Amino acid sequence: MKIAIAGLGLIGGSFAKAIAARTRHRCIGYDTSPEILRKALESGQIEDASLGAFSEADIVLVALYPSAAVEFLKANSGSFKEGAIVIDLCGVKRYVTDSVNGLFPHCTFIGGHPMAGRELSGFNAAQATLYDGASMILTPGENVPAETLKTCENFFLSLGFAKITLTTPEHHDEMIAFTSQMAHIVSSAYAQNPIVYSFDGFSAGSFADMTRVAKLNENMWTELFLLNRDYLTEQLDVLISQLTKFRKNISEANNKELNHMLRCGREIKEQIEKR
Amino acid sequence: MKIAIAGLGLIGGSFAKAIAARTRHRCIGYDTSPEILRKALESGQIEDASLGAFSEADIVLVALYPSAAVEFLKANSGSFKEGAIVIDLCGVKRYVTDSVNGLFPHCTFIGGHPMAGRELSGFNAAQATLYDGASMILTPGENVPAETLKTCENFFLSLGFAKITLTTPEHHDEMIAFTSQMAHIVSSAYAQNPIVYSFDGFSAGSFADMTRVAKLNENMWTELFLLNRDYLTEQLDVLISQLTKFRKNISEANNKELNHMLRCGREIKEQIEKR
Repeated sequence: MKIAIAGLGLIGGSFAKAIAARTRHRCIGYDTSPEILRKALESGQIEDASLGAFSEADIVLVALYPSAAVEFLKANSGSFKEGAIVIDLCGVKRYVTDSVNGLFPHCTFIGGHPMAGRELSGFNAAQATLYDGASMILTPGENVPAETLKTCENFFLSLGFAKITLTTPEHHDEMIAFTSQMAHIVSSAYAQNPIVYSFDGFSAGSFADMTRVAKLNENMWTELFLLNRDYLTEQLDVLISQLTKFRKNISEANNKELNHMLRCGREIKEQIEKR
Repeated sequence: MKIAIAGLGLIGGSFAKAIAARTRHRCIGYDTSPEILRKALESGQIEDASLGAFSEADIVLVALYPSAAVEFLKANSGSFKEGAIVIDLCGVKRYVTDSVNGLFPHCTFIGGHPMAGRELSGFNAAQATLYDGASMILTPGENVPAETLKTCENFFLSLGFAKITLTTPEHHDEMIAFTSQMAHIVSSAYAQNPIVYSFDGFSAGSFADMTRVAKLNENMWTELFLLNRDYLTEQLDVLISQLTKFRKNISEANNKELNHMLRCGREIKEQIEKR
């Protein structure tokens, strides 16, 4: 197949590198940086760097920030070929899906979100192995033919993904608020403490894990958070409420309740690990 | 030297295993479980399992829960030999230090806390390599001779520790509330969410990291938290306040402030990583 990728940052770049390293598909790439396009061309990860070539693509991947992805899709919807599969890779799915609704009736649009990342961004940080073992979330509409979906599944599995998770844009956004977006907020909030600079010598793995993803791209995450703020505030309310309960039981020295809460947390973690 | 260890769980057991594997010191061990004592004797990690032999030890390590450590030290203070170095390994330092103050004027007492752990407990989970690269915190009183401290430092470094961190019991308890205790609470609170069981397929590294230490020993941590509740509630207040600020900026769609907070968190993480 011919695969076109709009945006050769960490996510799009890793797709280009994985496609080049592991498949025989031919790749068209587009990015606003001529420097990155040159690099991708020279290394053979893409064979064409022109937006015009997107009209030849069987699958179009859009790896841009959500607002830029919608803008790109609106500007280029007419140029995709009949029957092309168009997949955005943004971290929020309701916004993109709603925005492009009905935009290209001659193509099949599917929302996507690869569950992988790094604390680095850009094409240079992109890796052919980034998606190894990860889940690829797809949020196909009801009208997507089973055959088209099968094509997508095979394509993603061939790049290293371990499984495909099919869901709705709504459920995706709710779950992602909990599993990913809130983790980034907690990590950032945890690090923003006056005594953080004295941590050296007083920490083991838990502090490092807790603050790992504080090293994030604030422009991208601000956009993602604001496009999912209903679910995200809901999730933050749950967490703040649990932390407040912990705080109360600790300040009141409520041994029994504190022990009970900790036991619940342990049992939950043990249960989900078994899955 | 002769080293006596009270309590052969994860922490004490790892000391016994590291001493046996890496030094020529001879080890005396004591535990309430005859089964564990038998194992440690048979594997040669200790050569004596009698409490009476503690009177021969040059260094006594107490690897029990804080209240049990204090109880043990009170009950056995008279039996340690003249000039012995007595070190407790509990996760809180003010409580233990204050409780044993003046208890054995013929020995040198030093508070200690090895910065290492696992999400498992007990002698079977103990590892000779547990302390490799870790920081060993010591909180010696002002009267501890430099020579005694040097003996301790050399001893811990010989077991795999990468460095010794000297501080006061107060500063230890404040820092540990932030770097370790609160991380365990956040992890537990994070996991206690009604939608947690649906996480499969929707998570990458950040969720796993965030909930890793929820798998904790609730009896030990309840005790540790309650013995450090002034500092711990202080730290929880800082975190809850930061999370509440994030929540406000998200719900009000305050793009600028949200971006600013995320940038601050990233810059802090980048700065502390450089140290």
